[in-house]
Amino acid sequence: MRTITVALDAMGGDFGPHVTVPAAVQALSIFPELNIILVGDESVLIPHLSSLGFYPNDRIYIEHTDKVIADTDKPSSIMRRSAGTSMRRAIDLVEDHTAQACVSGGNTGALMGLSRYRLKLLPNIERPALVSTLPTRSGQKVWLLDLGANVSVDANTLFQFAVMGTALAEEHLHRTPRVAILNVGTEEIKGNELVKQCSELLQQVQTINYIGFIEAHQLLHDEADVVVCDGFVGNVCLKASEGVANLFLEKLKQHMLSSKLRAWISKILFSELFSDLKQLNPDQYNGASLLGLRGIVIKSHGSADKTAIINAIIEAVHEVKRQVPSRISDRLETVSLERQN
Amino acid sequence: MRTITVALDAMGGDFGPHVTVPAAVQALSIFPELNIILVGDESVLIPHLSSLGFYPNDRIYIEHTDKVIADTDKPSSIMRRSAGTSMRRAIDLVEDHTAQACVSGGNTGALMGLSRYRLKLLPNIERPALVSTLPTRSGQKVWLLDLGANVSVDANTLFQFAVMGTALAEEHLHRTPRVAILNVGTEEIKGNELVKQCSELLQQVQTINYIGFIEAHQLLHDEADVVVCDGFVGNVCLKASEGVANLFLEKLKQHMLSSKLRAWISKILFSELFSDLKQLNPDQYNGASLLGLRGIVIKSHGSADKTAIINAIIEAVHEVKRQVPSRISDRLETVSLERQN
Repeated sequence: MRTITVALDAMGGDFGPHVTVPAAVQALSIFPELNIILVGDESVLIPHLSSLGFYPNDRIYIEHTDKVIADTDKPSSIMRRSAGTSMRRAIDLVEDHTAQACVSGGNTGALMGLSRYRLKLLPNIERPALVSTLPTRSGQKVWLLDLGANVSVDANTLFQFAVMGTALAEEHLHRTPRVAILNVGTEEIKGNELVKQCSELLQQVQTINYIGFIEAHQLLHDEADVVVCDGFVGNVCLKASEGVANLFLEKLKQHMLSSKLRAWISKILFSELFSDLKQLNPDQYNGASLLGLRGIVIKSHGSADKTAIINAIIEAVHEVKRQVPSRISDRLETVSLERQN
Repeated sequence: MRTITVALDAMGGDFGPHVTVPAAVQALSIFPELNIILVGDESVLIPHLSSLGFYPNDRIYIEHTDKVIADTDKPSSIMRRSAGTSMRRAIDLVEDHTAQACVSGGNTGALMGLSRYRLKLLPNIERPALVSTLPTRSGQKVWLLDLGANVSVDANTLFQFAVMGTALAEEHLHRTPRVAILNVGTEEIKGNELVKQCSELLQQVQTINYIGFIEAHQLLHDEADVVVCDGFVGNVCLKASEGVANLFLEKLKQHMLSSKLRAWISKILFSELFSDLKQLNPDQYNGASLLGLRGIVIKSHGSADKTAIINAIIEAVHEVKRQVPSRISDRLETVSLERQN
């Protein structure tokens, strides 16, 4: 069994070591082949580890750094002052092949900038994209990208997102994924120049299974496997979905627990309902991948709890096993060859 | 009591007269001062009316047209072939002051183009915007615009949306509404050029209560009263919210009704839950206004049922009573004066 090493930015996210350390410990019990490097301040991390009865060992060890990148740091200053931060060091561990993937819940802009600067983009890629899956009505998944790595893109970049999404999704699906562009209508005349131009590009290639435009309310209806959009639209789409899902769960709980009788009956008769509805909450699907790089970088929600961080680590392990960057590279080459002919 | 006349495009929407005629009849019973002109094919409309025991009279009458605008019609051909269609005639009735507002569930692009062409824009307005309210967590409303009238806009147009949204919302709220720009983050450095430039413009005026950026998951959290974005983003935001809300309701029903016992208990204990959750479904909030015109035009969902069309007619009546176009005009003038000084 080949060892998989994941570098975890233990200081990143809203709750830092309070959730990253317990998540790391638990993730080790899921994958016997997994090693984790906790990157951060050892004077903080060791007490957290020892409170769980753990000490640095062969499978979980600490890479000491004494600085962190703040959420408020400007992109311009991050590059200059990134040396010695936990996020930068976690990425560097992937760059020098000490780790095969890194996970961070820190500043998205910083993670993207530093990953791009340190790991470099794959050939034929202009911009990395943030991708995650949303749960669909039938219990399947839909891959949505970009979720916010790029607030504006051109048609060619959106086309590349379709190729990258295809490479990622086909590994899960074991078939060629159906790719759609998120738009304000499904008719060809609908939308802005970006989606119209990208649609034309996608119609010209056979190696991508492009099925046309999709509207946001169809996203969870199993009509497409991969949905592409610019990062502004994708971010709004994901967060609007999370907002409504959370509000529904909140209202449901209020009602169910509004009387003792209701609470008691809910517990007996509707316990599975809660877990089913929670599954629908996109917020639970933690671990967005930064695609298009020569290494694996997983972005965890800033507000991620222990379970969510474990999910992000699981995603990192899966991507290492599936060799996502080289699969994307292969796909890009195939499409590039088709476009040249 | 002053009479209010609403022209209803009785042929528009997915279900046409099957829902528009019963909705019109019921709306008359809500507002004693309301008259409705059903615009469409009288050979179709009269049987629908008579099946409900109604005949054209002083309060509900038919304006005969024998053509309709199809959803698939291209914007370029709509202007040319709009004469004699139910939508065009409904708008013309507003233009010649026979009606004070019109309601249509037809092709959004056509409705916008024809309204703009026939009714003209207010002074200081470059583009009309589609606005609707979403239900918030506390049971209040948030006004979101644009919902798809413009797939791309500049910062000045987005600024005008903020002014129009303020004029509409302050009438409901009886206070100065808090205005925010929808963005991918709340920090000033976040977002694309459009939102950054518009934010600068809004910071320069005192007559708009601009509170900064808002993220899509905060939309229903009562943090802002008016939220502005371009029509592409707004459309995706609204439809993503609808998609998740509908999926939750569907799953909830499946669980509640999965056994006779559960169905029976749900009916007794959780009946109010359904209506409460349905209230959260943005889909129920029918009747988006086309703002920025010299007349009142309400866009109904294409898939609207009878209740939804009644809601659209109610919105039309409210806007007539509140004299929305002249209020917007006043607001625009105040802001324009402030910017000149």
